[in-house]
Amino acid sequence: MNDKIPYKIYLSEDEIPKQWYNVRADMKVKPAPLLNPANGQPLKPEELEPIFCKELIRQEFDNDTKWIDIPEEVLNFYKMYRPSPLVHATFLEKALDTPARIFYKFEGNNTSGSHKLNSAIAQVYYAKQQGLKGVTTETGAGQWGTALSMACAYFGLDCQVYMVKCSYEQKPFRREVMRTYGAKVTPSPSETTAVGRKILAEHPGTTGSLGCAISEAVEAALTQEGYRYQLGSVLSQVLLHQTIIGLEAQKAMKKYDIKPDILIGCTGGGSNLGGFATPFIGEMLRGEADYKIIAAEPASCPSFTKGVFAYDFCDTGRICPLAKMYTLGSQFIPSSNHAGGLRFHGMSPVLSQLYHDGVFECRSVIQTDVFQAAETFARAEGILPAPESSHAIKIAIDEALKCKETGEAKTIVFNLSGTGYFDLMAYGKFNDGTMGDILPTDEELKGCFERLPKVGNE
Amino acid sequence: MNDKIPYKIYLSEDEIPKQWYNVRADMKVKPAPLLNPANGQPLKPEELEPIFCKELIRQEFDNDTKWIDIPEEVLNFYKMYRPSPLVHATFLEKALDTPARIFYKFEGNNTSGSHKLNSAIAQVYYAKQQGLKGVTTETGAGQWGTALSMACAYFGLDCQVYMVKCSYEQKPFRREVMRTYGAKVTPSPSETTAVGRKILAEHPGTTGSLGCAISEAVEAALTQEGYRYQLGSVLSQVLLHQTIIGLEAQKAMKKYDIKPDILIGCTGGGSNLGGFATPFIGEMLRGEADYKIIAAEPASCPSFTKGVFAYDFCDTGRICPLAKMYTLGSQFIPSSNHAGGLRFHGMSPVLSQLYHDGVFECRSVIQTDVFQAAETFARAEGILPAPESSHAIKIAIDEALKCKETGEAKTIVFNLSGTGYFDLMAYGKFNDGTMGDILPTDEELKGCFERLPKVGNE
Repeated sequence: MNDKIPYKIYLSEDEIPKQWYNVRADMKVKPAPLLNPANGQPLKPEELEPIFCKELIRQEFDNDTKWIDIPEEVLNFYKMYRPSPLVHATFLEKALDTPARIFYKFEGNNTSGSHKLNSAIAQVYYAKQQGLKGVTTETGAGQWGTALSMACAYFGLDCQVYMVKCSYEQKPFRREVMRTYGAKVTPSPSETTAVGRKILAEHPGTTGSLGCAISEAVEAALTQEGYRYQLGSVLSQVLLHQTIIGLEAQKAMKKYDIKPDILIGCTGGGSNLGGFATPFIGEMLRGEADYKIIAAEPASCPSFTKGVFAYDFCDTGRICPLAKMYTLGSQFIPSSNHAGGLRFHGMSPVLSQLYHDGVFECRSVIQTDVFQAAETFARAEGILPAPESSHAIKIAIDEALKCKETGEAKTIVFNLSGTGYFDLMAYGKFNDGTMGDILPTDEELKGCFERLPKVGNE
Repeated sequence: MNDKIPYKIYLSEDEIPKQWYNVRADMKVKPAPLLNPANGQPLKPEELEPIFCKELIRQEFDNDTKWIDIPEEVLNFYKMYRPSPLVHATFLEKALDTPARIFYKFEGNNTSGSHKLNSAIAQVYYAKQQGLKGVTTETGAGQWGTALSMACAYFGLDCQVYMVKCSYEQKPFRREVMRTYGAKVTPSPSETTAVGRKILAEHPGTTGSLGCAISEAVEAALTQEGYRYQLGSVLSQVLLHQTIIGLEAQKAMKKYDIKPDILIGCTGGGSNLGGFATPFIGEMLRGEADYKIIAAEPASCPSFTKGVFAYDFCDTGRICPLAKMYTLGSQFIPSSNHAGGLRFHGMSPVLSQLYHDGVFECRSVIQTDVFQAAETFARAEGILPAPESSHAIKIAIDEALKCKETGEAKTIVFNLSGTGYFDLMAYGKFNDGTMGDILPTDEELKGCFERLPKVGNE
């Protein structure tokens, strides 16, 4: 390892990667195809055209092209906030008194507060290219909705956001950021869609879920001329766009001869771990390197560690295609006690296949431990982390403390996907000691698994 | 101007300036001395020792040393978030369709959300050196309190923050950031101090002011063993520490041969404009260059444009020393309609003297115009600006639009001192169209001027 590593490694703007990396091209077992829930047949690209932009469908189905050019206008926007720094967490190392070397890629230095902007700007670019009027989407913690609002403001498209009700209430200020960028924000479930009204009738008083909000946003796209739906995670196209994170990290590490042993990212729908880790996973699949890769997921929404690998709906309203993935069942709604994002019942089909093939491991963590790790990190490194990202911090600290016991100087790299400036209500509960942890029971999960669709799973 | 200017100019860590610049050394007319309100005599350094740290008093009285070394430990901390980028606002230029070249120094990329950390870490370092247990302070919009909390967490000192009540209520989340860094936060005026009780008795239901909170924090420092008071603006020591902003900006501009015509900063107590502009003012005082420097202040708290240049108390409770400055009177409290910081009745004595000598000009702006400028900036440049900083944005846009009329390609540089992530209640009012502007009346100001102290002004 190079001795002269700065605290923050900033690549220059002309070092921003010009292509995204498609890990599917290197996978021997490809992710299973999306199925039409009506007949169980693999979906054809054209069947998705009423919902998604054409070019994004092309990317979604492309299991073969390893490198995909980033459009010039997207690269131009990336310069607003990229390259993001790779930080050598010397202050955290000192606070933990560990021989480990800890690095983090910091994706929070933009107003969306997270990595979500990387895919939002690409998706809106393709919508603009297609001559659309606007896009619809859902948002959980609010980062994705903010990112899409920013991208729409930049390209002059209308933006309609269905925001999970509990986030809408816990984070009123996120709504105002989106409105400042010109978006229309509706708490979900709402009375504005048929599926929203149905969910409200079945579950009065529900605080919503990402699955509900997806159903509403899809319906809104289908029922308005010149609109399409866009999604901030789960889809293979999103993982593709997010690889800018891992590719930049690889470049920065190569520049300073940093050789990672352990790579960590949090997982909700998979955009963060997928974007950060798949360029490294590609090296593993091609037999060029070996890493220990760890997904960090919330114990209150444990798709990998407690879910099943099966075909399931991506949305609670059961109007979306079926995807083969690790899932808790599309009817699973995490406890409203659970703060922040990472609330999705399923998981990226690409990551699900890789996990199924044993390429990486996953650990679930309870949120009081996560916030304790967040506090430690904030006081040492000066950045208030997002609760989502703090799942990765928790595992990174665990690994660094193991090194302290064994005396090993392992190199740990995690993705600090965002900042916690809009999560202060949750921090407040932690500060007050009233946070607690509510985990799904085995019985609850069993009930959800029993409601998995028969199609694709027989 | 160099053609290959990147969108964001990042200096390397070893280019961070190693010394602060003290503009007083270059001033022919020095700022007037602080006076003891009891006898009208210039204060001696030792008289301030119960309130302030010794080394900071030394810096406060030092009108002669032009360059002051930044301690190694402070430089080390600076690496956490510095150098801050100088951004070429090409997206804003395009949105305004102006021939002007616009740059901004961006100080918001740290968890305090502003430039305040530059002085906080220095002040707490000196407190630690002196063997103190803790520090007390006030905070308005919350940036300074957060910055001091972060600095205290880093050096392991106790931190007690008196937060202006209207900010405490408008920004509950700021409190939680401070608590996450271990600080104790009290809304001001409070029942915890004699001066707070007095102010509450005289003005029941008051939403507070920076002047009130200062009185309380000073009393708290005086009445606790091993505590001193620290202030985030106004003082000459603070301007000194903040010159890291202007010095870095100068270095970055020199590197790319950028020659500014107009420099803009917002002013509340003066830390932002002082830190950004005094290195350039120094060039002017030494006859090396000429710039147009513009202070941007709120029309609802117009110290420069409507105030008088006189001796006044720095606090509402009238327990602090007298400073000669532009002031609206220590009894002036801005309308609670006014969002964010820049609520101080007075102004840095250094900047006051320079303004009195005609070195720079000042323009006051109403807040609905400020938020309109903020929205334009956010949509173009992707950063949600602090309301305070948006005063500077408003003037920068005005100047750029003038260039559009005249066809001149002037180079405009402003300091984007912070982000608006904790100001979403105010943005919400703007989005709803319910913001409005409430300005002080001439009668109100006259009443405040009549209550100026006789001492020093006869």
